[in-house]
Amino acid sequence: MAEPSSKKQRTQPPYELLYHPGVPGRGEPIRLLLEAAGVPYNDIANQEKNGYDTVQKICMNKALESDNGNPPVFSPPALRVPGAGKDGKALVISQTPNILSYLGDRTGMAGDEQEKYWVAQLALTALDLANEVHDSHHPIAVAKYYEEQKEESKGKSKDIRENRFPKFFSYFQRTLQGNKERGGVEGKYMVGKQLTYADTTIWQVLDGCMFAFPKEMEARKEEFPDLLQGFYESVKSEKGLKEYLASDRRLEYSMGIFRQYPELDRQ
Amino acid sequence: MAEPSSKKQRTQPPYELLYHPGVPGRGEPIRLLLEAAGVPYNDIANQEKNGYDTVQKICMNKALESDNGNPPVFSPPALRVPGAGKDGKALVISQTPNILSYLGDRTGMAGDEQEKYWVAQLALTALDLANEVHDSHHPIAVAKYYEEQKEESKGKSKDIRENRFPKFFSYFQRTLQGNKERGGVEGKYMVGKQLTYADTTIWQVLDGCMFAFPKEMEARKEEFPDLLQGFYESVKSEKGLKEYLASDRRLEYSMGIFRQYPELDRQ
Repeated sequence: MAEPSSKKQRTQPPYELLYHPGVPGRGEPIRLLLEAAGVPYNDIANQEKNGYDTVQKICMNKALESDNGNPPVFSPPALRVPGAGKDGKALVISQTPNILSYLGDRTGMAGDEQEKYWVAQLALTALDLANEVHDSHHPIAVAKYYEEQKEESKGKSKDIRENRFPKFFSYFQRTLQGNKERGGVEGKYMVGKQLTYADTTIWQVLDGCMFAFPKEMEARKEEFPDLLQGFYESVKSEKGLKEYLASDRRLEYSMGIFRQYPELDRQ
Repeated sequence: MAEPSSKKQRTQPPYELLYHPGVPGRGEPIRLLLEAAGVPYNDIANQEKNGYDTVQKICMNKALESDNGNPPVFSPPALRVPGAGKDGKALVISQTPNILSYLGDRTGMAGDEQEKYWVAQLALTALDLANEVHDSHHPIAVAKYYEEQKEESKGKSKDIRENRFPKFFSYFQRTLQGNKERGGVEGKYMVGKQLTYADTTIWQVLDGCMFAFPKEMEARKEEFPDLLQGFYESVKSEKGLKEYLASDRRLEYSMGIFRQYPELDRQ
């Protein structure tokens, strides 16, 4: 787990999350890692006045750099770390799995030198599933409305629910079940003996799926009890996460990656 | 660049690539990294007799482990490194970006301690584009034939060509152009002063797009000359890559991620 934060860190958050305001979205796995590690951060668009201007300026410009001499950002989220860049400037990095890897190494949320690659592969796979779920309501064009691709969304959602969910859930559940053999704690953690960002990221994607496809996920609970009941409930009550999930920092799902369209759920 | 390989490494390749035989696919960014670094490897399914049996046994089973006590693999590619795991066993890791990150750190293909996060974010973004291009012929269901989702593929491909390509290409070209300001070599490399796996991975995805959408990419060459002409040609002639691309180890595109369906190209 994370080292206890110093007083300086508490008053001057070293990590700045740059993401769209008002939705959990692709920023949420990053928030969960930091909350579980007990590391303070500044969620710029949600916490600062005119914060979204800053996010747009750094992450959504058309320039040759994002900020402080760092390369451009393709799209939010990005992480800015004042003082961590060249010549004492800020470091700006992007892409959720990359940010998780950077923070994982610095907060004790990535396991040991070997486990970190297992943690990374699990988080990457969970984020792949999140991408597929996004495409369940946008299979044809990201920039068009759902209503313009509603029929195609039904076909895509059916495939995700019937073929992709069992494949992903089987993989996560088998990893969980095999963790004890690898010297870890079975049932609670995917890798090793303590919480890593593999757990928090998988948990977030499962939680999003429960919001988007409540009927489908309810039906799957009996099929994957270790994952969708044991693990899911256990992660939710981890120190740091329990407090966060009850706080108003935890944003509600709305029109982001995870959307609840009853016509796309199991009928 | 990579340290010259020792004689032992040359006779006993330390890195084993586990992937489907006969296609470049998701294994190709890994091959390009290793070829450019001059590091020997064993491409199990293409080089060993009954090699694909080994790949299937390790990467496509339904067990609680992949091999040697390592966690399951969701799907190929995986990397096996004999002796690098716990108690001197083999380490098995999966997910292309994770394998690139592991190998990048060990072959000098990832830049310095700060640049490695920029390299990772660029490779992740190139692999996101590859995923979108895969969906250009499979927008509804991975397990169904293209012919069963041909109409939807036309809509998806149009969006990718008209909206997504310019967004990705602008991002890569601006990163390339801004590299000089960050102390690197402009035009040749995305990050820093020497080849990294950001370059080889982006190159591979651009090359795949040129195969899949020849008319579209030809038309885009004038719009993004630094990326699609200067950078593309320059990477192709890098030491290690030039020899590899002329060898029979470089596999032809066929029915993988990048497919040439003229009806999906610019008309």
